[in-house]
Amino acid sequence: MPELRLKEYSALVESGLNGLFPQEACRHGKIFEACRYSLLAGGKHIRAALLLEFYRLCGGRAEDAIPFACGLEMIHTYSLVHDDLPCMDNDDFRRGKPSNHKVYGETMATLAGDALLNRAFEVMLEQTAVPAERAVKAAAYISRCSGVYGMIGGQVQDLGMEGRPATLEELREMVSLKTGALIRAACAAGVLLAGGSEEQKKAAEDYAAAVGLAFQIQDDILDVVGDQAVLGKAIGSDVANEKTTFVSVYGLETCRSMVRNLTMEAEAAAETFADGGFLKNLAGYLAKRDN
Amino acid sequence: MPELRLKEYSALVESGLNGLFPQEACRHGKIFEACRYSLLAGGKHIRAALLLEFYRLCGGRAEDAIPFACGLEMIHTYSLVHDDLPCMDNDDFRRGKPSNHKVYGETMATLAGDALLNRAFEVMLEQTAVPAERAVKAAAYISRCSGVYGMIGGQVQDLGMEGRPATLEELREMVSLKTGALIRAACAAGVLLAGGSEEQKKAAEDYAAAVGLAFQIQDDILDVVGDQAVLGKAIGSDVANEKTTFVSVYGLETCRSMVRNLTMEAEAAAETFADGGFLKNLAGYLAKRDN
Repeated sequence: MPELRLKEYSALVESGLNGLFPQEACRHGKIFEACRYSLLAGGKHIRAALLLEFYRLCGGRAEDAIPFACGLEMIHTYSLVHDDLPCMDNDDFRRGKPSNHKVYGETMATLAGDALLNRAFEVMLEQTAVPAERAVKAAAYISRCSGVYGMIGGQVQDLGMEGRPATLEELREMVSLKTGALIRAACAAGVLLAGGSEEQKKAAEDYAAAVGLAFQIQDDILDVVGDQAVLGKAIGSDVANEKTTFVSVYGLETCRSMVRNLTMEAEAAAETFADGGFLKNLAGYLAKRDN
Repeated sequence: MPELRLKEYSALVESGLNGLFPQEACRHGKIFEACRYSLLAGGKHIRAALLLEFYRLCGGRAEDAIPFACGLEMIHTYSLVHDDLPCMDNDDFRRGKPSNHKVYGETMATLAGDALLNRAFEVMLEQTAVPAERAVKAAAYISRCSGVYGMIGGQVQDLGMEGRPATLEELREMVSLKTGALIRAACAAGVLLAGGSEEQKKAAEDYAAAVGLAFQIQDDILDVVGDQAVLGKAIGSDVANEKTTFVSVYGLETCRSMVRNLTMEAEAAAETFADGGFLKNLAGYLAKRDN
């Protein structure tokens, strides 16, 4: 069932995103096209779904938080567009399609990333369905998580770990910032927007911490399993090229058990909410995903 | 006298900015250094000063709006850092110093730009001295002006005008977005933060439109006069390389008279405020500046 609810949320968000960069016949219309290209590239909108669900669980109507859900997806998308740039990870493909700069060029991709980040705040702040105090708190929380004290800090830390083995402590810290911070933002902002209690906010943060870490470990597992399936590579080849991952440190079996344990932690946090079934199912669904 | 007040505002803002990227001993500390490098590079903080002055004229205490003044300067600085990148204008120098990517590399400069834009919203939203409704309105107005419908739209339009002569209409539209929008944001946000009237907001926008256009025309004049002084180039050489500027269209003398007329328009808009002396002097000061 979580897939069903996830699809409902995803459709709501997709429809919201679709209206944010209309194809205008203006002199700077190309940037709208470049933003749409990456924003509507078929992501699963996990972050948006988490925000909408926590908002609902704390008493809100999901529809009223769509601008914030869209804002999170825009922040996530800008980070992918900039990450793919030649001066960053230099990736030619993203979600099976040519990356933004391969289609629109580096100049436009840089500006499109900037535009997506900027418009995320524009859309969150222009929405009126939520009281201003709550909107300010939620947007401030999100910006904290996406900036130097969150996602960007994690990106920088990741850069510093290239080409050398990292300690487990470093790896955990990096992941909790680079991947975890925006997931935490999604969960906590849902609570803040609905005016939820401190206890609910704490539960959202606990849930996010467990799901975020499980998500990254599962990513590392899928990387290795995918490589093995495609290339017949031996496990541990990531150690050889000096990139430390959870699998390179713990091995596949321990990682699988870590994902199981973290999923149980997430499920326990979801118990705070009488109607936390979707959160539990989503944690399980993410732990079992194969892409 | 405007220089004196400008210096006071600038010192306030500089002190605020100085605290925003502390030199932390964390694993991702390099990004703090890269952000500081460009943020504290000795700009005049015109945008911040405009925001603080309109805030004061509408009844606020300048100190309370410092986070917003800092936010504007961060947005302005991020745009310069990204503009200088090799895939953009490819400038090696900015304000007489090596540009950000020449010192920290392209990867870090890209992330530093992202971080500055993100932290601008973080700082504006985390501040508490202004009622939430006003903070939301002002931050939304600023984001509108810095995004695809403002500064970024202007950057994209400017790209589309490269290597061919532009019409005067295009040039005006591009300038009103690329340079003008953030100046408009500064003036209007000051009014919005203080809860000023519609009439005051209108006057702020009129003042900004005149000052913003005068600023760009003066820039074009200084480019030509500077080139003539240094290289003995003939006026009109910009036409030869097909970059349309106000000087290439109208010639130096007409441009100088346009700056004078726009400055008078700005002074007239400043009359809306009983205590608008600084605004008048600032408009005159900007029109007479030589760098």
